[in-house]
Amino acid sequence: MSIEGLIRAIPDFPLPGILFRDITPLLKDAEGFRHAIDLFVDRFKGSGVQHVVGIEARGYMLGAPLAYGIGAGFIPVRKPGKLPYSKLSESYALEYGTNSLEIHADALQSGDRVVVVDDLLATGGTAAATRRLLERLGAKVEAFAFLIELDALKGRDALPGSEVVSFIRY
Amino acid sequence: MSIEGLIRAIPDFPLPGILFRDITPLLKDAEGFRHAIDLFVDRFKGSGVQHVVGIEARGYMLGAPLAYGIGAGFIPVRKPGKLPYSKLSESYALEYGTNSLEIHADALQSGDRVVVVDDLLATGGTAAATRRLLERLGAKVEAFAFLIELDALKGRDALPGSEVVSFIRY
Repeated sequence: MSIEGLIRAIPDFPLPGILFRDITPLLKDAEGFRHAIDLFVDRFKGSGVQHVVGIEARGYMLGAPLAYGIGAGFIPVRKPGKLPYSKLSESYALEYGTNSLEIHADALQSGDRVVVVDDLLATGGTAAATRRLLERLGAKVEAFAFLIELDALKGRDALPGSEVVSFIRY
Repeated sequence: MSIEGLIRAIPDFPLPGILFRDITPLLKDAEGFRHAIDLFVDRFKGSGVQHVVGIEARGYMLGAPLAYGIGAGFIPVRKPGKLPYSKLSESYALEYGTNSLEIHADALQSGDRVVVVDDLLATGGTAAATRRLLERLGAKVEAFAFLIELDALKGRDALPGSEVVSFIRY
């Protein structure tokens, strides 16, 4: 089936000039959602990945089912102030300001093999910040996996040396 | 296996006097995570539920794998300003202020049968606001399902007439 047809383009969200790729029509479609998650599962089943790291919040909607599907653990990377325990933080630049991401200090052990999941790769700022968090914990990032990649924004260039998997490219 | 042992109690988070139940040690444990999701899947497989509604953000970590596991669609209820399309909003009171939740106006059709998932039932404020959103769309809430229920806060009383499922009670 075509999952591209279930992704909706919304002009000028969240700011003028940005064409937002809305995956909610895909998520709510039972067949479409299963197919999308299966793309991730088929790619990483048997890869030896022990943990899936999801980036808040749409990364949780895809990353948690992937973890369940391949029998891995799930680790949330969160916006500031959400995690209750000892944690690390990394800042990143947005088109519209700066923000930071956090991970629990005990989320991973040195040498753990992970895949990082988010819905969309744009400039790669959040993915690169996540990689810095994971490197500080000594984890090995096997791959970054996105449902959608926006080629024009060259997000791959922000992740040199890492494998980047995406299933729909604009 | 015991999943209770993988839930961590954090005193005074996010505010003094609140004992926060941290599920991240459970999520990151592959066996524990699978077992927790299987509790939900086993409960709702074959129930005829067509959509799982997850409440931001920990509800996504449990609700999206449940949707995948039972072959349902997934619908996020989100914090304000996150959804890009035409939407409905409902406010609710917190111990520490007020907030609101939003759902896309086209997320469900009248008569759709859903289960609502979050990690924890406390006062029931967010669950009740979610029920109001779903009722405005004409959806039928088959059940609310939580990993954890805090009995002392009587959250069930905020959801009269609804089935409430929880797997760990304090």
